[in-house]
Amino acid sequence: MAEPATATQAAAPAVPQLKDELDIVIPTIRNLDFLEMWRPFFEPYHLIIVQDGDPSKIIKVPDGFDYELYNRNDINRILGPKASCISFKDSACRCFGYMVSKKKYIYTIDDDCFVAKDPSGKAINALEQHIKNLLSPSTPFFFNTLYDPFREGADFVRGYPFSLREGVPTAVSHGLWLNIPDYDAPTQLVKPLERNTRYVDAVLTIPKGTLFPMCGMNLAFDRELIGPAMYFGLMGDGQPIGRYDDMWAGWCVKVICDHLGLGVKTGLPYIYHSKASNPFVNLRKEYKGIFWQEEIIPFFQQSVLPKDCTTVQKCYIELAKQVKEKLSKVDPYFDKLADAMVTWIEAWDELNPAGASLANGKAA
Amino acid sequence: MAEPATATQAAAPAVPQLKDELDIVIPTIRNLDFLEMWRPFFEPYHLIIVQDGDPSKIIKVPDGFDYELYNRNDINRILGPKASCISFKDSACRCFGYMVSKKKYIYTIDDDCFVAKDPSGKAINALEQHIKNLLSPSTPFFFNTLYDPFREGADFVRGYPFSLREGVPTAVSHGLWLNIPDYDAPTQLVKPLERNTRYVDAVLTIPKGTLFPMCGMNLAFDRELIGPAMYFGLMGDGQPIGRYDDMWAGWCVKVICDHLGLGVKTGLPYIYHSKASNPFVNLRKEYKGIFWQEEIIPFFQQSVLPKDCTTVQKCYIELAKQVKEKLSKVDPYFDKLADAMVTWIEAWDELNPAGASLANGKAA
Repeated sequence: MAEPATATQAAAPAVPQLKDELDIVIPTIRNLDFLEMWRPFFEPYHLIIVQDGDPSKIIKVPDGFDYELYNRNDINRILGPKASCISFKDSACRCFGYMVSKKKYIYTIDDDCFVAKDPSGKAINALEQHIKNLLSPSTPFFFNTLYDPFREGADFVRGYPFSLREGVPTAVSHGLWLNIPDYDAPTQLVKPLERNTRYVDAVLTIPKGTLFPMCGMNLAFDRELIGPAMYFGLMGDGQPIGRYDDMWAGWCVKVICDHLGLGVKTGLPYIYHSKASNPFVNLRKEYKGIFWQEEIIPFFQQSVLPKDCTTVQKCYIELAKQVKEKLSKVDPYFDKLADAMVTWIEAWDELNPAGASLANGKAA
Repeated sequence: MAEPATATQAAAPAVPQLKDELDIVIPTIRNLDFLEMWRPFFEPYHLIIVQDGDPSKIIKVPDGFDYELYNRNDINRILGPKASCISFKDSACRCFGYMVSKKKYIYTIDDDCFVAKDPSGKAINALEQHIKNLLSPSTPFFFNTLYDPFREGADFVRGYPFSLREGVPTAVSHGLWLNIPDYDAPTQLVKPLERNTRYVDAVLTIPKGTLFPMCGMNLAFDRELIGPAMYFGLMGDGQPIGRYDDMWAGWCVKVICDHLGLGVKTGLPYIYHSKASNPFVNLRKEYKGIFWQEEIIPFFQQSVLPKDCTTVQKCYIELAKQVKEKLSKVDPYFDKLADAMVTWIEAWDELNPAGASLANGKAA
């Protein structure tokens, strides 16, 4: 018979949730001093550091953190020819970390992101909020005007159909940024001084059928539910485009989540984004994307996945096929990208053989 | 040549916006003492009071307010047999006020709603925020993760297609409620003590294709853009249902806004909702709706309006036809409701002849 918790248990201080079921993935080219600020929140967790750029450089990680680190040589050794699907000299390389993780959940964060404060001045444990978001259902089929009905003090409002109140599993938790907002180069150029100071105390499900710009700076997801779709594409070295890695992943992820009945949440938690990247450099990376997204987004809005796409892998391979068919005419880059999408799935399946148990974080 | 404002002009205190272009519609059965609290914000505007229940009762309106008042005798006299489409003994009667207004904008509020405070303790001018919402565009085709990009200090984030940044005209601004949340009877019964204390500092566009539960307590809209769809249905006296008036309007409005490319915003402003209605009474009013909404919502989700429906009236008549075809089998009530929808449009067109100018608030 199940027993209720004792008063002592109930009052016990919170232990880090999902400690053995979550990896923190950090792409970097520098020493990870930013981790000092995150120590109280991240130290209990395992880190996967994906070192970009020169593999001979030594990345210093503050003492006390439990981590594994992969540089380009490691990626090449582990994936062999399939390493071609992992970007170089671009933070898109982070998705290699998603692939080698053996845990159920991933949190990924950029190394220029610090701990933000809520309006009361309290340090925000971003990871804790992401875990709350991931462990409570999403509501993609109808909009709840009081936002996430599963938060404390909230519920479904009058007129919300009862049949939809169970919600669906949450696959993605997209967090936001105080201070430097995630603007594109043109907006950075036009509004160099704009800072985000508005703390919006909300989490909400992005409705089914609606695409959104997914930023990779402060992002958590359930690898089991959506991992194979979290491919950050071909960016950086040798590619005609950058800064669309997370966008690409976000479009693919949302289409697949909608098809599979999974939820995507956005809003809390905030991190403090410390410094704006160079808008001139960004413009060079982005400018083809600015044109291309005008065709890519309608493509994803109209994409329909057939009923027999019942796994993320099948959905993703089908999307790759559609990308090749429909977007190659935009630029030959998309032909290459479609091939890389297939390679990514092959590499994913190689590193994550079917039947390997992820649920307990102890995959074979 | 246009001249810039002088420093004095720029620093001048804000005059009430849209003073001659907006009516405040209040349905009531009691003296309007609640207006005292709203005096600084509402006094410059014209009020349309729709008196429900016994027409012989005298409703007291505090001195200094400019108003017109309609009781049931007035409604019967003005609409003749078409008065059958206006509900009696239910706040749904408020939509008569939308019909007789000659202004471009409507704000409607319940008489148990008071001025809320923002987290800094400042009184919230709800009307001012609604006007901001209505006068800035909406973005229904793609989700902006920093919420309304037209608010000060916000913008479109990286990855938002530039072709969609003009937005579309905003037809509806749906405001929220602190203190007593707008819960249905079952939730009221289960959580009698729940209060909404979370101030979410956000306005957002409800994406195209997504329905929401529109509450009539604190609602503003553009009569020219969407007025004829703001019909609050047949509720109350002689009807098998209550408390679905605003929901019905919301479903119709959203389907039509989506079809016509208009925007619906929700979020700020908050009002302070003073007291919960009786959950037992509410359950009696709602219980058929709780069943029916399970069929009504899929009906609206699947409803497609033909291309030749280019005006709100045409859309609404088409929706009435679809309601008759598809929902009459749920209950004979919907047959009657579909007829009332047509009557509503006939009455609307009678009181608002084509060509009457609304833009300047001085219709013929």
